[in-house]
Amino acid sequence: MIYFDNAATSYPKPQSVINAVRNSMFLYGANPGRSGHAFSVKTAETVYETRELLDGFFDGYGSEFICFTVNCTHALNTAIKGILNKGDHVIISSLEHNSVTRPIHALKEKGFITYSVFSVCEDKEETLENFKNAFTRNTKLCVVTAVSNVFGNILPIKELSRVAHSMGAYFFVDGAQGAGVIPISMKNDGIDCLCIPGHKGLLGPMGTGALLHGNVDLKPLIQGGTGSSSFDLNQPENFPERLESGTLNVPGICGLKEGLKVVEKIGVDNIRKRENEICKEIFEGLKDIKKVKLYRDFYNEELYAPVLSFNIDGLHSEQVSAMLDRGGVAVRGGFHCSPLAHISMGTNDTGTVRISPSFRTTKKDINILLNLIRKIAIKEFI
Amino acid sequence: MIYFDNAATSYPKPQSVINAVRNSMFLYGANPGRSGHAFSVKTAETVYETRELLDGFFDGYGSEFICFTVNCTHALNTAIKGILNKGDHVIISSLEHNSVTRPIHALKEKGFITYSVFSVCEDKEETLENFKNAFTRNTKLCVVTAVSNVFGNILPIKELSRVAHSMGAYFFVDGAQGAGVIPISMKNDGIDCLCIPGHKGLLGPMGTGALLHGNVDLKPLIQGGTGSSSFDLNQPENFPERLESGTLNVPGICGLKEGLKVVEKIGVDNIRKRENEICKEIFEGLKDIKKVKLYRDFYNEELYAPVLSFNIDGLHSEQVSAMLDRGGVAVRGGFHCSPLAHISMGTNDTGTVRISPSFRTTKKDINILLNLIRKIAIKEFI
Repeated sequence: MIYFDNAATSYPKPQSVINAVRNSMFLYGANPGRSGHAFSVKTAETVYETRELLDGFFDGYGSEFICFTVNCTHALNTAIKGILNKGDHVIISSLEHNSVTRPIHALKEKGFITYSVFSVCEDKEETLENFKNAFTRNTKLCVVTAVSNVFGNILPIKELSRVAHSMGAYFFVDGAQGAGVIPISMKNDGIDCLCIPGHKGLLGPMGTGALLHGNVDLKPLIQGGTGSSSFDLNQPENFPERLESGTLNVPGICGLKEGLKVVEKIGVDNIRKRENEICKEIFEGLKDIKKVKLYRDFYNEELYAPVLSFNIDGLHSEQVSAMLDRGGVAVRGGFHCSPLAHISMGTNDTGTVRISPSFRTTKKDINILLNLIRKIAIKEFI
Repeated sequence: MIYFDNAATSYPKPQSVINAVRNSMFLYGANPGRSGHAFSVKTAETVYETRELLDGFFDGYGSEFICFTVNCTHALNTAIKGILNKGDHVIISSLEHNSVTRPIHALKEKGFITYSVFSVCEDKEETLENFKNAFTRNTKLCVVTAVSNVFGNILPIKELSRVAHSMGAYFFVDGAQGAGVIPISMKNDGIDCLCIPGHKGLLGPMGTGALLHGNVDLKPLIQGGTGSSSFDLNQPENFPERLESGTLNVPGICGLKEGLKVVEKIGVDNIRKRENEICKEIFEGLKDIKKVKLYRDFYNEELYAPVLSFNIDGLHSEQVSAMLDRGGVAVRGGFHCSPLAHISMGTNDTGTVRISPSFRTTKKDINILLNLIRKIAIKEFI
């Protein structure tokens, strides 16, 4: 199987990640922060080291302001529901994933909040203008993805956050596709809260995610045992305990730690450069295939992260992805949980076939992919 | 390190669990239910098989009514907040963990619900009487732990559920300490919703938990991408998608599957029998040590699961556990996130030292533990 589905989860995981997960079950087998014994303390230490690494990696506000979650969706729900009060207005982009859209839509359906969607355009100034026009006097929060999971657009996070803050609103970022793929600095980019998965660009195992914030007064979504202040029936106020109840995914966190180290060692800039080269090659190859519809005129590496969507005339995206699967190539067809993105690009009938390579994708992988798509387009492979 | 902290997380994990977690990162490395390719389908299959195993193990209501969570606390929050409406009344036992107490207390503090605590007594009839007396005409839900995580009391789940249902209330069970330790049948025991950790009695890795229910109309606590009905801005109504958003902890679930198989192969009854023998031996040994305070007169294996709490006169439980740690024995001192249990037993000053063996605890382990406690009690070991 040639894997072009790294936007769903990265594969293969580095050997060091796999080893760390495995070893954690011997070495850090105890529950961190729950018992005082050496084994538990050792586990707590490795969890803490992972917080420190994450904090450094995203130029965060300190390791206490990092809470581990099972995935990015859980982090986003915690952040969004943790900050909103009745009557608040929220702004989201037209490229948001259902992990942002659905919790916000659910709050709206309950009559708790209202929200607006601003259109992301090819032209940055137009995007910023649309964003500015979406504010109301009740706008408390803006939630924006760093990178579209369907079309790869990189959003102008720094400029958007400046607008949000000037309007007195919080600026939260969905880092699902951006983390480990493009450089993100919470402080420089003006991000109040960054939600990330551990298992995509950061190369950690599935079952990991985190919420990083700048001491934002988030109400907890989940309450429970924190191994601290046991006698208080209220959730502790201090971070990260306020947002971390119950036993953490220690094996996953140990794996994430190693994934982060791999990404740091190679460098996000190098990863991005390599993935851009790969994507550009695929893009140019696809452009030459008749019947293939791409949703960009040219490959601009400043504007896009390495996620490519395409379709073949007369075929549904899921038919194409099924054919590619039969040919031994894993991509994703369909809607990718992002209805707004398809509406804005007019792909709501067919969805798109999404190609998401990694920096480890080889020339040979690319050739196999392109040859197969060529054959499908001319009906030589069904 | 001799490990007597299995109530926090079981250790060591079976080799098959460790192998499954490791192999899952090669074999089931794709995101289940997100893409149609063979790799993703294979991953979805193994997740489904784990649901089936859990359903069989707990005599549940079908694998679609099982939702995976990161831990038992997350499952409890999902269940509790998923069923309650404004004005509802809730009943909990005096032995609940903060994973039950805190979410319910938080809802009360918001003015959303009210709740009562009924006392669990040595005498079952008295317990049932206390339970009955706690009902009001608004009682919608009862949440009861199967086993106290501090004193090991087994609660009369079947009788309590009968009362709850006769009063028209839902009966939810916290299986944190009971799952894999005592037999639990959702159907026979009348459990509407069972929340479990995967990493304690079921021998799976940390980072796993589940909520099993009998088609209870639970509102989702978290919304997001489910890989299904992408175009609907509302969370899908069908289970398990309604309660499962974002990427699952696939390596953890693969490990849990193997943990369940180990427990099934040995048999919960055999595990319980063995753990009871071990606990009885420790209990008898402790009884003979002057200055050791146990909180039971005799070891009754019908009434208690293998969790023993004790104290040594003149020492705080955390001092004792620190001394045991220095002697190479891992136990847990303190309050174990269960304030109500300590209030009802009068241990709110010192907490307790908790010994939680497993069926793999050896005679040698027991002797080392008892010898060390003896030395601490006579101040030969500090």
